Amino acid sequence: MTYCVAIKLNAGLVFLSDSRTNAGLDHISTFRKTIVYERPGDRFMVLLSAGNLSISQSIREILQVEKLQDPDSNEPLTIWNAKSMFDAARVLGSAVRRVHERDAQALRLSDVEFNVSMLFGGQIQGEGMRLFQMYSAGNFIEATTETPYFQVGESKYGKPVLDRVLTPETPLEEAAKCALVSMDSTMKSNLSVGFPLDLVVYECDQLHSDKLVCIDQDNPYYRMMHNNWGQKLRQVFDSIEDPVWDDSHTETPLKMPAERHAQMRKIHNPNEKLI
Amino acid sequence: MTYCVAIKLNAGLVFLSDSRTNAGLDHISTFRKTIVYERPGDRFMVLLSAGNLSISQSIREILQVEKLQDPDSNEPLTIWNAKSMFDAARVLGSAVRRVHERDAQALRLSDVEFNVSMLFGGQIQGEGMRLFQMYSAGNFIEATTETPYFQVGESKYGKPVLDRVLTPETPLEEAAKCALVSMDSTMKSNLSVGFPLDLVVYECDQLHSDKLVCIDQDNPYYRMMHNNWGQKLRQVFDSIEDPVWDDSHTETPLKMPAERHAQMRKIHNPNEKLI
Repeated sequence: MTYCVAIKLNAGLVFLSDSRTNAGLDHISTFRKTIVYERPGDRFMVLLSAGNLSISQSIREILQVEKLQDPDSNEPLTIWNAKSMFDAARVLGSAVRRVHERDAQALRLSDVEFNVSMLFGGQIQGEGMRLFQMYSAGNFIEATTETPYFQVGESKYGKPVLDRVLTPETPLEEAAKCALVSMDSTMKSNLSVGFPLDLVVYECDQLHSDKLVCIDQDNPYYRMMHNNWGQKLRQVFDSIEDPVWDDSHTETPLKMPAERHAQMRKIHNPNEKLI
Repeated sequence: MTYCVAIKLNAGLVFLSDSRTNAGLDHISTFRKTIVYERPGDRFMVLLSAGNLSISQSIREILQVEKLQDPDSNEPLTIWNAKSMFDAARVLGSAVRRVHERDAQALRLSDVEFNVSMLFGGQIQGEGMRLFQMYSAGNFIEATTETPYFQVGESKYGKPVLDRVLTPETPLEEAAKCALVSMDSTMKSNLSVGFPLDLVVYECDQLHSDKLVCIDQDNPYYRMMHNNWGQKLRQVFDSIEDPVWDDSHTETPLKMPAERHAQMRKIHNPNEKLI
């Protein structure tokens, strides 16, 4: 499995991926799932991938040389000459479809689904930052201010903290912290997501970034965040009072008089009917 | 969708379910998923169900009268005469299989999977408390001290807090709070899980319980817990320092010298090869 998250803020973009892949539980390996395409001053793009590794590796190999014939322009589109991130995403979609043409039928004969999903975001000179989620069919959707992040892979464990924290106004470093906390919750609950992590932070309009880092279990910041989050979460949990059933001595009774047994189906003998 | 969680502690059992069902997004209804079977002083059992509602309702209807022929005993087994929770779980499994015989083929013809999963726990006089998770095939597994809880339905959003808090030594009221926090995270991230909630707390060896409560959005305890958890989680998040890229002025640098760009695949021009 995999967990990847990408966040689009007013201040920039954040990308985070783990690097564990598994084919069954007894074949676990490390493969990097983040790749950066950069021509400083002109374009900065990041691709995160989840799903079947043979498919995503083929797509990334092809993407480097993929040319999309476009009726509106003289020369074929590539990710290196596209004038917008939307066009670059179309090139990526075309690479996905090319791999589908090559492999999907043979995979189907082996009962393997053509399963890949990707996050692709960045900025090309002349337009704002954009972030896309790409599906196996090569179609894609774009992040908006209402939905400032996308996840692919094992996304559910780490979603609550993203929902609680992220807005387009969130500062860049805070969003990076949020992505790391989200990853931490995911790794705690799912063995198939694991170190090392790849983190990329891109500041709006810079058209390059040096904020790329590979994080393993010895990373001082990650260790501090992991320990603090775990301990303090536990403190918060402990600080909330336990439920009190007796309704007469508390401002926050769990059971109010009117609710006693209300609607709960309690059956006392075999001849009693279900309500 | 549904979210149900059941916890087995040394001190007792906790059961919590939501009550939302949906057939697509435009057909959302409220159905209770918790049912209590009690003969005070003799047995106390709770059943939580997730999956296809027509299947789980049929199973519950049948369970009341289900008789399992058992070569080891003279009279047929029912949930009301079973001498152990294990035997009661076998009766439930038999009810699941009876509904499968009746409905599975017709469902398959409509491309509907025979999908049901249940949590079934309690205590029968003469033995300890037991907790089972039942699958669609009528087979089941039992909770142990290493795995003190089971979830069915939309389980992932609410799993991290259970993993962080629960052990067999956890007090009963604290475990009830933990289940409610887990439900709160699930409802925050998934629309298909919703109020009202049914909570049952059973104290070891009591063989009956009055700690049954139906919780809606106006419940004072739930509101207090929900607000406190959200606010304090945010405070904890804010209290953890943001990542610092410069490695010279902090004890917890995100990027260590040796890790700069380490292994990150960054591609600068179309002719560069993937590593």
